[in-house]
Amino acid sequence: MTHLLNLDRFRSAGIVTIGYEILQGRVVDTNSAYLARKLFLMGLDVRSTISVSDDLEDIIRALKFAVSDMGAELVFTTGGLGPTPDDRTLEAIARFLGVELVVNDEALRDIKAKYSRRGVELTPERLKMAKLPQGAVPLLNPVGIAPGIYIESTVGERRIAIVSLPGVPREMEAIFEKYIEPALRKSRRLYVAEGYVRLRVMESEIAPYIRSVMKRYSGIYIKSHPEGEELGLPVVRIYTAAYGRDAERAYEACKAVQEEFISYAKEKGIEVAEHKPCVVH
Amino acid sequence: MTHLLNLDRFRSAGIVTIGYEILQGRVVDTNSAYLARKLFLMGLDVRSTISVSDDLEDIIRALKFAVSDMGAELVFTTGGLGPTPDDRTLEAIARFLGVELVVNDEALRDIKAKYSRRGVELTPERLKMAKLPQGAVPLLNPVGIAPGIYIESTVGERRIAIVSLPGVPREMEAIFEKYIEPALRKSRRLYVAEGYVRLRVMESEIAPYIRSVMKRYSGIYIKSHPEGEELGLPVVRIYTAAYGRDAERAYEACKAVQEEFISYAKEKGIEVAEHKPCVVH
Repeated sequence: MTHLLNLDRFRSAGIVTIGYEILQGRVVDTNSAYLARKLFLMGLDVRSTISVSDDLEDIIRALKFAVSDMGAELVFTTGGLGPTPDDRTLEAIARFLGVELVVNDEALRDIKAKYSRRGVELTPERLKMAKLPQGAVPLLNPVGIAPGIYIESTVGERRIAIVSLPGVPREMEAIFEKYIEPALRKSRRLYVAEGYVRLRVMESEIAPYIRSVMKRYSGIYIKSHPEGEELGLPVVRIYTAAYGRDAERAYEACKAVQEEFISYAKEKGIEVAEHKPCVVH
Repeated sequence: MTHLLNLDRFRSAGIVTIGYEILQGRVVDTNSAYLARKLFLMGLDVRSTISVSDDLEDIIRALKFAVSDMGAELVFTTGGLGPTPDDRTLEAIARFLGVELVVNDEALRDIKAKYSRRGVELTPERLKMAKLPQGAVPLLNPVGIAPGIYIESTVGERRIAIVSLPGVPREMEAIFEKYIEPALRKSRRLYVAEGYVRLRVMESEIAPYIRSVMKRYSGIYIKSHPEGEELGLPVVRIYTAAYGRDAERAYEACKAVQEEFISYAKEKGIEVAEHKPCVVH
Protein backbone atom coordinates (compact mmCIF):
# COMPACT_ATOMS: atom_id res chain seq x y z
CA MET A 1 0.00 0.00 0.00
CA THR A 2 1.71 3.14 -1.16
CA HIS A 3 -0.97 5.84 -1.05
CA LEU A 4 -2.86 7.09 1.99
CA LEU A 5 -6.35 5.70 2.58
CA ASN A 6 -9.07 8.26 1.95
CA LEU A 7 -11.19 8.44 5.10
CA ASP A 8 -12.65 11.91 4.42
CA ARG A 9 -16.26 10.82 4.25
CA PHE A 10 -16.45 9.10 7.63
CA ARG A 11 -17.77 10.96 10.67
CA SER A 12 -18.90 8.21 13.02
CA ALA A 13 -17.22 5.07 14.23
CA GLY A 14 -17.87 1.81 16.01
CA ILE A 15 -15.54 -0.66 17.68
CA VAL A 16 -15.97 -4.44 17.86
CA THR A 17 -13.49 -6.48 19.90
CA ILE A 18 -13.54 -10.22 19.37
CA GLY A 19 -12.53 -13.02 21.72
CA TYR A 20 -13.77 -14.86 24.76
CA GLU A 21 -10.99 -13.52 26.99
CA ILE A 22 -12.82 -10.21 27.35
CA LEU A 23 -16.18 -11.89 28.01
CA GLN A 24 -14.52 -14.06 30.64
CA GLY A 25 -13.03 -10.99 32.26
CA ARG A 26 -9.54 -12.40 31.87
CA VAL A 27 -8.29 -9.28 30.12
CA VAL A 28 -9.47 -5.70 30.31
CA ASP A 29 -10.44 -4.41 26.88
CA THR A 30 -7.64 -1.87 26.45
CA ASN A 31 -7.86 -2.13 22.63
CA SER A 32 -11.26 -0.43 22.70
CA ALA A 33 -9.95 2.31 24.98
CA TYR A 34 -6.93 2.89 22.73
CA LEU A 35 -9.01 3.09 19.56
CA ALA A 36 -11.79 5.16 21.15
CA ARG A 37 -9.29 7.70 22.43
CA LYS A 38 -7.54 8.03 19.07
CA LEU A 39 -10.80 8.31 17.13
CA PHE A 40 -12.33 10.81 19.56
CA LEU A 41 -9.28 13.07 19.34
CA MET A 42 -9.50 12.97 15.53
CA GLY A 43 -13.06 14.30 15.76
CA LEU A 44 -14.90 11.05 15.05
CA ASP A 45 -18.08 10.26 16.95
CA VAL A 46 -17.58 6.81 18.46
CA ARG A 47 -21.12 5.41 18.77
CA SER A 48 -20.49 2.10 20.50
CA THR A 49 -17.97 -0.49 21.50
CA ILE A 50 -18.93 -4.18 21.64
CA SER A 51 -17.15 -7.32 22.69
CA VAL A 52 -18.35 -10.68 21.48
CA SER A 53 -16.94 -14.19 21.34
CA ASP A 54 -15.22 -15.65 18.28
CA ASP A 55 -18.46 -17.30 17.18
CA LEU A 56 -19.11 -16.45 13.53
CA GLU A 57 -22.75 -15.49 14.01
CA ASP A 58 -21.95 -13.37 17.05
CA ILE A 59 -19.34 -11.39 15.14
CA ILE A 60 -21.84 -10.78 12.33
CA ARG A 61 -24.46 -9.66 14.89
CA ALA A 62 -21.97 -7.23 16.41
CA LEU A 63 -21.10 -5.77 12.98
CA LYS A 64 -24.79 -5.35 12.20
CA PHE A 65 -25.39 -3.63 15.53
CA ALA A 66 -22.49 -1.21 15.01
CA VAL A 67 -23.40 -0.38 11.40
CA SER A 68 -27.18 -0.68 11.19
CA ASP A 69 -28.42 0.02 14.74
CA MET A 70 -25.81 2.54 15.84
CA GLY A 71 -25.08 4.11 12.44
CA ALA A 72 -21.29 3.79 12.49
CA GLU A 73 -19.64 4.58 9.15
CA LEU A 74 -16.17 3.37 10.05
CA VAL A 75 -16.06 0.14 12.05
CA PHE A 76 -12.92 -1.19 13.69
CA THR A 77 -12.54 -4.79 14.73
CA THR A 78 -9.72 -6.25 16.82
CA GLY A 79 -8.86 -9.90 17.22
CA GLY A 80 -9.47 -13.10 15.29
CA LEU A 81 -6.99 -12.63 12.44
CA GLY A 82 -4.49 -15.33 13.40
CA PRO A 83 -3.77 -18.85 12.13
CA THR A 84 -5.92 -20.88 14.56
CA PRO A 85 -9.37 -22.29 13.74
CA ASP A 86 -11.11 -19.89 16.13
CA ASP A 87 -9.74 -16.86 14.24
CA ARG A 88 -12.83 -16.16 12.14
CA THR A 89 -13.14 -12.39 11.95
CA LEU A 90 -12.40 -12.11 8.22
CA GLU A 91 -14.90 -14.86 7.44
CA ALA A 92 -17.51 -12.93 9.44
CA ILE A 93 -16.73 -9.67 7.63
CA ALA A 94 -16.95 -11.41 4.27
CA ARG A 95 -20.33 -12.90 5.20
CA PHE A 96 -21.56 -9.55 6.56
CA LEU A 97 -20.61 -7.76 3.34
CA GLY A 98 -21.70 -10.59 1.04
CA VAL A 99 -18.31 -11.25 -0.54
CA GLU A 100 -15.99 -14.25 -0.77
CA LEU A 101 -12.71 -14.88 1.01
CA VAL A 102 -9.93 -14.96 -1.59
CA VAL A 103 -6.16 -15.25 -1.39
CA ASN A 104 -4.77 -11.73 -1.60
CA ASP A 105 -1.50 -11.67 -3.57
CA GLU A 106 0.07 -8.83 -1.64
CA ALA A 107 -0.75 -10.40 1.72
CA LEU A 108 0.46 -13.79 0.50
CA ARG A 109 3.80 -12.41 -0.70
CA ASP A 110 4.31 -10.68 2.63
CA ILE A 111 3.44 -13.73 4.75
CA LYS A 112 5.55 -16.03 2.54
CA ALA A 113 8.53 -13.70 2.79
CA LYS A 114 8.24 -13.43 6.57
CA TYR A 115 8.11 -17.20 7.07
CA SER A 116 10.68 -18.14 4.43
CA ARG A 117 13.18 -15.72 5.97
CA ARG A 118 13.08 -18.07 8.96
CA GLY A 119 13.07 -21.24 6.88
CA VAL A 120 9.50 -22.03 7.90
CA GLU A 121 7.12 -23.58 5.38
CA LEU A 122 3.70 -22.23 4.43
CA THR A 123 1.12 -24.57 6.01
CA PRO A 124 -2.66 -24.24 5.47
CA GLU A 125 -2.87 -22.48 8.88
CA ARG A 126 -0.36 -19.87 7.76
CA LEU A 127 -1.90 -19.49 4.30
CA LYS A 128 -5.24 -18.77 5.96
CA MET A 129 -3.98 -15.35 7.07
CA ALA A 130 -3.66 -14.30 3.41
CA LYS A 131 -7.31 -15.09 2.64
CA LEU A 132 -9.08 -11.73 2.77
CA PRO A 133 -12.61 -10.62 1.92
CA GLN A 134 -12.75 -9.79 -1.80
CA GLY A 135 -11.99 -6.10 -2.32
CA ALA A 136 -10.04 -5.70 0.93
CA VAL A 137 -6.78 -3.77 1.05
CA PRO A 138 -4.22 -5.59 3.21
CA LEU A 139 -2.64 -3.51 5.97
CA LEU A 140 0.67 -5.34 6.28
CA ASN A 141 1.74 -6.02 9.85
CA PRO A 142 4.99 -4.19 10.73
CA VAL A 143 5.60 -6.20 13.90
CA GLY A 144 3.80 -9.52 13.36
CA ILE A 145 2.49 -11.79 10.65
CA ALA A 146 -1.29 -11.48 10.24
CA PRO A 147 -2.18 -8.43 8.12
CA GLY A 148 -5.06 -6.16 9.01
CA ILE A 149 -7.52 -5.16 6.32
CA TYR A 150 -9.39 -2.09 5.09
CA ILE A 151 -12.56 -2.71 3.12
CA GLU A 152 -15.25 -0.35 1.85
CA SER A 153 -18.78 -1.38 1.04
CA THR A 154 -22.36 -0.19 0.80
CA VAL A 155 -24.79 -1.32 3.51
CA GLY A 156 -28.36 -0.26 2.91
CA GLU A 157 -27.69 3.00 1.09
CA ARG A 158 -24.75 4.06 3.20
CA ARG A 159 -21.09 3.87 2.32
CA ILE A 160 -19.19 2.27 5.17
CA ALA A 161 -15.73 0.87 5.78
CA ILE A 162 -14.38 -1.81 8.07
CA VAL A 163 -10.85 -1.77 9.45
CA SER A 164 -9.84 -5.10 10.89
CA LEU A 165 -6.85 -5.20 13.23
CA PRO A 166 -5.08 -7.96 15.20
CA GLY A 167 -5.96 -8.49 18.85
CA VAL A 168 -2.39 -8.32 20.17
CA PRO A 169 -2.19 -4.68 21.33
CA ARG A 170 1.33 -4.09 20.02
CA GLU A 171 0.36 -5.28 16.53
CA MET A 172 -3.00 -3.50 16.58
CA GLU A 173 -1.34 -0.21 17.51
CA ALA A 174 1.45 -0.59 14.95
CA ILE A 175 -1.00 -1.09 12.08
CA PHE A 176 -3.31 1.68 13.30
CA GLU A 177 -0.44 4.14 13.60
CA LYS A 178 1.02 3.24 10.22
CA TYR A 179 -2.08 3.21 8.02
CA ILE A 180 -5.09 4.68 9.82
CA GLU A 181 -3.89 7.52 12.01
CA PRO A 182 -2.13 9.44 9.19
CA ALA A 183 -5.23 9.11 7.00
CA LEU A 184 -7.53 10.33 9.78
CA ARG A 185 -5.19 13.18 10.57
CA LYS A 186 -5.19 14.28 6.95
CA SER A 187 -8.96 14.11 6.62
CA ARG A 188 -9.90 15.58 9.93
CA ARG A 189 -12.15 18.63 9.94
CA LEU A 190 -12.75 18.83 13.67
CA TYR A 191 -10.38 19.56 16.50
CA VAL A 192 -11.16 18.62 20.09
CA ALA A 193 -10.15 20.63 23.15
CA GLU A 194 -10.67 19.05 26.54
CA GLY A 195 -10.06 19.86 30.18
CA TYR A 196 -11.73 19.64 33.56
CA VAL A 197 -12.26 21.34 36.89
CA ARG A 198 -12.75 19.50 40.17
CA LEU A 199 -15.09 21.20 42.64
CA ARG A 200 -15.66 20.34 46.30
CA VAL A 201 -19.44 20.10 46.09
CA MET A 202 -22.15 17.43 46.04
CA GLU A 203 -23.10 16.38 42.51
CA SER A 204 -26.78 16.66 43.46
CA GLU A 205 -26.19 20.25 44.58
CA ILE A 206 -24.50 21.44 41.42
CA ALA A 207 -26.72 19.42 39.05
CA PRO A 208 -29.17 22.30 38.36
CA TYR A 209 -26.31 24.66 37.51
CA ILE A 210 -24.69 22.07 35.23
CA ARG A 211 -28.01 21.77 33.44
CA SER A 212 -28.19 25.54 32.90
CA VAL A 213 -24.65 25.65 31.49
CA MET A 214 -25.45 22.71 29.20
CA LYS A 215 -28.43 24.62 27.83
CA ARG A 216 -26.41 27.76 27.12
CA TYR A 217 -23.52 25.83 25.55
CA SER A 218 -25.50 23.19 23.72
CA GLY A 219 -22.74 22.32 21.22
CA ILE A 220 -20.21 21.55 23.92
CA TYR A 221 -19.87 18.27 25.75
CA ILE A 222 -20.09 18.74 29.53
CA LYS A 223 -20.08 15.81 31.90
CA SER A 224 -19.94 15.59 35.67
CA HIS A 225 -18.27 12.70 37.45
CA PRO A 226 -18.83 12.23 41.18
CA GLU A 227 -15.59 11.46 42.96
CA GLY A 228 -15.04 11.01 46.66
CA GLU A 229 -18.33 10.50 48.47
CA GLU A 230 -21.53 12.43 47.83
CA LEU A 231 -22.12 12.84 51.59
CA GLY A 232 -18.60 12.47 52.95
CA LEU A 233 -16.00 14.54 51.12
CA PRO A 234 -17.80 15.15 47.85
CA VAL A 235 -15.81 16.14 44.79
CA VAL A 236 -17.30 16.54 41.34
CA ARG A 237 -15.07 16.49 38.29
CA ILE A 238 -16.64 18.50 35.49
CA TYR A 239 -15.16 17.52 32.17
CA THR A 240 -15.53 19.69 29.08
CA ALA A 241 -14.81 18.78 25.46
CA ALA A 242 -15.38 21.26 22.65
CA TYR A 243 -15.11 20.74 18.92
CA GLY A 244 -13.94 23.38 16.49
CA ARG A 245 -12.96 23.63 12.85
CA ASP A 246 -9.55 24.75 13.99
CA ALA A 247 -7.57 24.23 17.18
CA GLU A 248 -8.10 27.78 18.45
CA ARG A 249 -11.88 27.72 18.15
CA ALA A 250 -12.01 24.41 19.98
CA TYR A 251 -9.79 25.78 22.73
CA GLU A 252 -11.79 28.99 23.19
CA ALA A 253 -15.10 27.13 23.41
CA CYS A 254 -13.72 24.70 25.99
CA LYS A 255 -12.21 27.53 28.03
CA ALA A 256 -15.46 29.53 28.05
CA VAL A 257 -17.29 26.66 29.77
CA GLN A 258 -14.50 26.12 32.29
CA GLU A 259 -14.64 29.82 33.20
CA GLU A 260 -18.38 29.56 33.85
CA PHE A 261 -17.81 26.88 36.46
CA ILE A 262 -14.86 28.62 38.05
CA SER A 263 -16.75 31.93 38.47
CA TYR A 264 -19.79 30.06 39.80
CA ALA A 265 -17.60 28.28 42.35
CA LYS A 266 -16.04 31.57 43.44
CA GLU A 267 -19.44 33.19 43.78
CA LYS A 268 -20.87 30.31 45.85
CA GLY A 269 -17.79 29.79 47.98
CA ILE A 270 -17.15 26.32 46.48
CA GLU A 271 -13.50 25.29 46.54
CA VAL A 272 -11.85 24.52 43.19
CA ALA A 273 -9.82 21.44 44.07
CA GLU A 274 -8.13 21.22 40.67
CA HIS A 275 -8.17 23.04 37.36
CA LYS A 276 -6.87 21.20 34.33
CA PRO A 277 -6.88 23.83 31.56
CA CYS A 278 -8.25 22.97 28.13
CA VAL A 279 -5.80 21.51 25.63
CA VAL A 280 -6.06 20.50 21.98
CA HIS A 281 -4.36 17.19 21.22
CA MET B 1 -34.54 -6.34 50.74
CA THR B 2 -34.36 -9.11 53.26
CA HIS B 3 -34.42 -12.29 51.19
CA LEU B 4 -31.94 -13.41 48.56
CA LEU B 5 -32.81 -12.77 44.91
CA ASN B 6 -33.64 -15.95 43.05
CA LEU B 7 -31.36 -16.11 40.01
CA ASP B 8 -31.65 -19.88 39.48
CA ARG B 9 -33.20 -19.70 36.05
CA PHE B 10 -30.54 -17.56 34.39
CA ARG B 11 -27.71 -19.16 32.41
CA SER B 12 -26.53 -16.39 30.08
CA ALA B 13 -25.62 -12.78 30.70
CA GLY B 14 -24.94 -9.50 28.94
CA ILE B 15 -23.24 -6.33 30.11
CA VAL B 16 -24.09 -2.78 29.01
CA THR B 17 -21.91 0.10 30.25
CA ILE B 18 -23.28 3.57 29.78
CA GLY B 19 -21.45 6.87 29.42
CA TYR B 20 -19.46 8.86 26.90
CA GLU B 21 -16.25 8.58 28.91
CA ILE B 22 -15.71 5.04 27.62
CA LEU B 23 -16.53 5.97 24.02
CA GLN B 24 -14.11 8.89 24.28
CA GLY B 25 -11.43 6.54 25.58
CA ARG B 26 -11.02 8.65 28.71
CA VAL B 27 -11.53 5.67 30.97
CA VAL B 28 -10.90 1.99 30.40
CA ASP B 29 -14.05 -0.05 30.93
CA THR B 30 -12.99 -1.89 34.07
CA ASN B 31 -16.62 -2.32 35.17
CA SER B 32 -17.24 -4.74 32.30
CA ALA B 33 -14.09 -6.68 33.15
CA TYR B 34 -15.09 -6.90 36.82
CA LEU B 35 -18.61 -8.12 36.06
CA ALA B 36 -17.52 -10.47 33.27
CA ARG B 37 -14.98 -12.12 35.54
CA LYS B 38 -17.46 -12.56 38.39
CA LEU B 39 -20.19 -13.92 36.11
CA PHE B 40 -17.85 -16.27 34.26
CA LEU B 41 -16.56 -17.76 37.51
CA MET B 42 -20.17 -18.34 38.63
CA GLY B 43 -20.76 -20.41 35.50
CA LEU B 44 -22.76 -17.85 33.53
CA ASP B 45 -22.18 -17.52 29.79
CA VAL B 46 -21.43 -13.84 29.15
CA ARG B 47 -22.58 -13.29 25.57
CA SER B 48 -21.54 -9.67 24.97
CA THR B 49 -20.45 -6.43 26.53
CA ILE B 50 -21.47 -3.11 24.99
CA SER B 51 -20.67 0.51 25.76
CA VAL B 52 -22.95 3.26 24.52
CA SER B 53 -23.46 6.93 25.31
CA ASP B 54 -26.07 8.22 27.75
CA ASP B 55 -28.50 8.88 24.87
CA LEU B 56 -31.87 7.30 25.71
CA GLU B 57 -32.33 5.60 22.33
CA ASP B 58 -28.78 4.26 22.34
CA ILE B 59 -29.27 2.66 25.76
CA ILE B 60 -32.49 1.04 24.53
CA ARG B 61 -30.69 -0.23 21.40
CA ALA B 62 -27.95 -1.73 23.55
CA LEU B 63 -30.49 -3.50 25.80
CA LYS B 64 -32.28 -4.88 22.74
CA PHE B 65 -29.00 -6.12 21.31
CA ALA B 66 -28.01 -7.85 24.56
CA VAL B 67 -31.43 -9.45 25.11
CA SER B 68 -32.87 -10.07 21.66
CA ASP B 69 -29.83 -10.43 19.37
CA MET B 70 -27.42 -12.09 21.81
CA GLY B 71 -29.95 -13.97 23.92
CA ALA B 72 -28.80 -12.78 27.36
CA GLU B 73 -31.17 -13.71 30.18
CA LEU B 74 -29.55 -11.60 32.88
CA VAL B 75 -28.41 -8.15 31.74
CA PHE B 76 -26.22 -5.87 33.82
CA THR B 77 -25.99 -2.15 33.21
CA THR B 78 -23.53 0.24 34.84
CA GLY B 79 -23.73 4.02 34.91
CA GLY B 80 -26.44 6.62 34.51
CA LEU B 81 -28.19 6.27 37.88
CA GLY B 82 -27.16 9.61 39.39
CA PRO B 83 -28.92 12.93 39.95
CA THR B 84 -27.84 14.78 36.77
CA PRO B 85 -30.01 15.19 33.66
CA ASP B 86 -27.78 12.89 31.61
CA ASP B 87 -28.38 9.99 34.02
CA ARG B 88 -31.10 8.24 32.03
CA THR B 89 -30.51 4.53 32.42
CA LEU B 90 -33.65 3.81 34.46
CA GLU B 91 -35.78 5.75 31.98
CA ALA B 92 -34.31 3.63 29.19
CA ILE B 93 -34.96 0.38 31.07
CA ALA B 94 -38.56 1.46 31.78
CA ARG B 95 -39.08 2.24 28.10
CA PHE B 96 -37.45 -1.02 27.02
CA LEU B 97 -39.70 -3.05 29.33
CA GLY B 98 -42.81 -0.96 28.66
CA VAL B 99 -43.37 0.18 32.24
CA GLU B 100 -43.56 3.57 33.98
CA LEU B 101 -41.03 5.22 36.27
CA VAL B 102 -42.58 5.53 39.73
CA VAL B 103 -41.30 6.71 43.08
CA ASN B 104 -40.24 3.63 45.03
CA ASP B 105 -41.01 4.00 48.73
CA GLU B 106 -38.08 1.95 49.98
CA ALA B 107 -35.61 3.83 47.78
CA LEU B 108 -37.14 7.17 48.76
CA ARG B 109 -36.90 6.42 52.49
CA ASP B 110 -33.25 5.41 52.07
CA ILE B 111 -32.28 8.48 50.03
CA LYS B 112 -34.19 10.81 52.38
CA ALA B 113 -32.49 9.31 55.41
CA LYS B 114 -29.03 9.62 53.86
CA TYR B 115 -29.50 13.28 52.95
CA SER B 116 -31.35 14.33 56.11
CA ARG B 117 -28.58 12.87 58.28
CA ARG B 118 -26.42 15.58 56.75
CA GLY B 119 -29.08 18.28 56.96
CA VAL B 120 -29.42 18.37 53.17
CA GLU B 121 -32.85 18.91 51.61
CA LEU B 122 -34.48 16.64 49.01
CA THR B 123 -34.39 18.55 45.70
CA PRO B 124 -35.97 17.25 42.46
CA GLU B 125 -32.48 16.11 41.34
CA ARG B 126 -32.12 13.98 44.47
CA LEU B 127 -35.70 12.69 44.34
CA LYS B 128 -35.05 11.51 40.77
CA MET B 129 -32.82 8.71 42.11
CA ALA B 130 -35.88 7.16 43.85
CA LYS B 131 -37.90 6.94 40.63
CA LEU B 132 -37.55 3.34 39.50
CA PRO B 133 -39.18 1.31 36.73
CA GLN B 134 -42.46 -0.13 38.04
CA GLY B 135 -41.82 -3.57 39.53
CA ALA B 136 -38.14 -2.97 40.24
CA VAL B 137 -36.57 -4.06 43.53
CA PRO B 138 -34.19 -1.35 44.81
CA LEU B 139 -30.67 -2.52 45.65
CA LEU B 140 -29.79 0.05 48.31
CA ASN B 141 -26.33 1.53 47.91
CA PRO B 142 -24.06 0.67 50.88
CA VAL B 143 -21.42 3.27 50.00
CA GLY B 144 -23.25 5.95 48.02
CA ILE B 145 -26.70 7.38 47.38
CA ALA B 146 -28.18 6.13 44.10
CA PRO B 147 -29.69 2.65 44.52
CA GLY B 148 -29.25 -0.04 41.92
CA ILE B 149 -32.27 -2.02 40.75
CA TYR B 150 -33.27 -5.59 39.97
CA ILE B 151 -36.22 -6.06 37.64
CA GLU B 152 -37.67 -9.16 35.99
CA SER B 153 -39.76 -9.11 32.86
CA THR B 154 -40.81 -11.12 29.83
CA VAL B 155 -39.33 -10.16 26.47
CA GLY B 156 -40.75 -12.10 23.56
CA GLU B 157 -41.46 -15.36 25.33
CA ARG B 158 -38.36 -15.35 27.47
CA ARG B 159 -38.11 -14.48 31.13
CA ILE B 160 -35.24 -12.04 31.62
CA ALA B 161 -33.92 -9.80 34.37
CA ILE B 162 -32.01 -6.53 34.36
CA VAL B 163 -29.62 -5.54 37.14
CA SER B 164 -28.75 -1.86 37.02
CA LEU B 165 -25.68 -0.68 38.93
CA PRO B 166 -23.96 2.69 39.43
CA GLY B 167 -20.99 3.61 37.24
CA VAL B 168 -18.63 4.49 40.09
CA PRO B 169 -16.66 1.22 40.44
CA ARG B 170 -16.63 1.27 44.27
CA GLU B 171 -20.43 1.61 44.40
CA MET B 172 -21.01 -0.87 41.58
CA GLU B 173 -18.87 -3.49 43.31
CA ALA B 174 -20.44 -2.89 46.73
CA ILE B 175 -23.97 -3.45 45.39
CA PHE B 176 -22.92 -6.44 43.29
CA GLU B 177 -21.18 -8.09 46.23
CA LYS B 178 -24.05 -7.45 48.62
CA TYR B 179 -27.05 -8.50 46.52
CA ILE B 180 -25.99 -10.31 43.35
CA GLU B 181 -22.94 -12.40 44.16
CA PRO B 182 -24.54 -14.30 47.09
CA ALA B 183 -27.59 -15.04 44.95
CA LEU B 184 -25.45 -16.29 42.05
CA ARG B 185 -23.33 -18.36 44.40
CA LYS B 186 -26.42 -20.01 45.84
CA SER B 187 -27.95 -20.76 42.45
CA ARG B 188 -24.83 -21.87 40.67
CA ARG B 189 -24.80 -25.30 39.11
CA LEU B 190 -21.52 -25.04 37.30
CA TYR B 191 -17.98 -24.71 38.59
CA VAL B 192 -15.15 -23.40 36.45
CA ALA B 193 -11.55 -24.57 36.62
CA GLU B 194 -8.96 -22.63 34.67
CA GLY B 195 -5.24 -22.66 34.09
CA TYR B 196 -2.70 -22.29 31.32
CA VAL B 197 0.61 -23.50 29.94
CA ARG B 198 3.05 -21.33 28.03
CA LEU B 199 4.99 -23.09 25.28
CA ARG B 200 7.97 -21.79 23.32
CA VAL B 201 6.54 -22.48 19.87
CA MET B 202 5.02 -20.56 16.98
CA GLU B 203 1.23 -20.36 17.16
CA SER B 204 1.01 -21.34 13.49
CA GLU B 205 3.09 -24.46 14.21
CA ILE B 206 0.98 -25.72 17.09
CA ALA B 207 -2.38 -24.69 15.55
CA PRO B 208 -3.09 -28.15 14.02
CA TYR B 209 -2.43 -29.87 17.34
CA ILE B 210 -4.63 -27.39 19.21
CA ARG B 211 -7.39 -28.16 16.74
CA SER B 212 -7.05 -31.90 17.36
CA VAL B 213 -7.22 -31.42 21.15
CA MET B 214 -10.28 -29.18 20.73
CA LYS B 215 -12.00 -31.94 18.79
CA ARG B 216 -11.29 -34.57 21.42
CA TYR B 217 -12.30 -32.32 24.32
CA SER B 218 -15.22 -30.53 22.72
CA GLY B 219 -16.85 -29.47 25.98
CA ILE B 220 -13.75 -27.69 27.24
CA TYR B 221 -12.74 -24.17 26.35
CA ILE B 222 -9.23 -24.05 24.90
CA LYS B 223 -7.74 -20.85 23.59
CA SER B 224 -4.26 -19.99 22.36
CA HIS B 225 -2.78 -16.54 22.80
CA PRO B 226 0.37 -15.62 20.88
CA GLU B 227 2.83 -13.83 23.11
CA GLY B 228 6.29 -12.64 22.23
CA GLU B 229 6.83 -12.65 18.48
CA GLU B 230 5.69 -15.34 16.08
CA LEU B 231 9.05 -15.27 14.28
CA GLY B 232 11.34 -13.86 16.96
CA LEU B 233 10.95 -15.54 20.35
CA PRO B 234 7.52 -17.07 19.94
CA VAL B 235 5.56 -18.05 23.03
CA VAL B 236 2.00 -19.35 22.94
CA ARG B 237 -0.13 -19.27 26.07
CA ILE B 238 -2.72 -22.02 25.94
CA TYR B 239 -5.54 -21.27 28.31
CA THR B 240 -7.99 -23.96 29.42
CA ALA B 241 -11.31 -23.51 31.21
CA ALA B 242 -13.50 -26.49 32.08
CA TYR B 243 -16.97 -26.56 33.58
CA GLY B 244 -18.23 -29.20 35.94
CA ARG B 245 -21.20 -29.81 38.18
CA ASP B 246 -18.81 -29.91 41.09
CA ALA B 247 -15.39 -28.43 41.70
CA GLU B 248 -13.56 -31.72 41.35
CA ARG B 249 -15.04 -32.62 37.98
CA ALA B 250 -14.16 -29.16 36.65
CA TYR B 251 -10.61 -29.51 37.95
CA GLU B 252 -10.08 -32.98 36.46
CA ALA B 253 -11.34 -31.93 33.04
CA CYS B 254 -9.10 -28.86 33.00
CA LYS B 255 -6.09 -30.86 34.13
CA ALA B 256 -6.61 -33.54 31.46
CA VAL B 257 -6.27 -30.95 28.70
CA GLN B 258 -3.21 -29.38 30.29
CA GLU B 259 -1.55 -32.78 30.45
CA GLU B 260 -2.19 -33.32 26.74
CA PHE B 261 -0.24 -30.18 25.89
CA ILE B 262 2.56 -30.91 28.33
CA SER B 263 3.13 -34.44 26.97
CA TYR B 264 2.95 -33.14 23.41
CA ALA B 265 5.57 -30.50 24.24
CA LYS B 266 7.84 -33.11 25.82
CA GLU B 267 7.47 -35.41 22.83
CA LYS B 268 8.25 -32.65 20.32
CA GLY B 269 11.05 -31.06 22.32
CA ILE B 270 9.09 -27.86 22.87
CA GLU B 271 10.03 -26.00 26.03
CA VAL B 272 7.28 -25.43 28.62
CA ALA B 273 8.00 -21.86 29.67
CA GLU B 274 5.34 -21.82 32.39
CA HIS B 275 2.70 -24.10 33.82
CA LYS B 276 -0.11 -22.53 35.79
CA PRO B 277 -2.06 -25.50 37.19
CA CYS B 278 -5.84 -25.55 36.98
CA VAL B 279 -7.71 -23.99 39.90
CA VAL B 280 -11.38 -23.71 40.77
CA HIS B 281 -12.35 -20.26 42.07
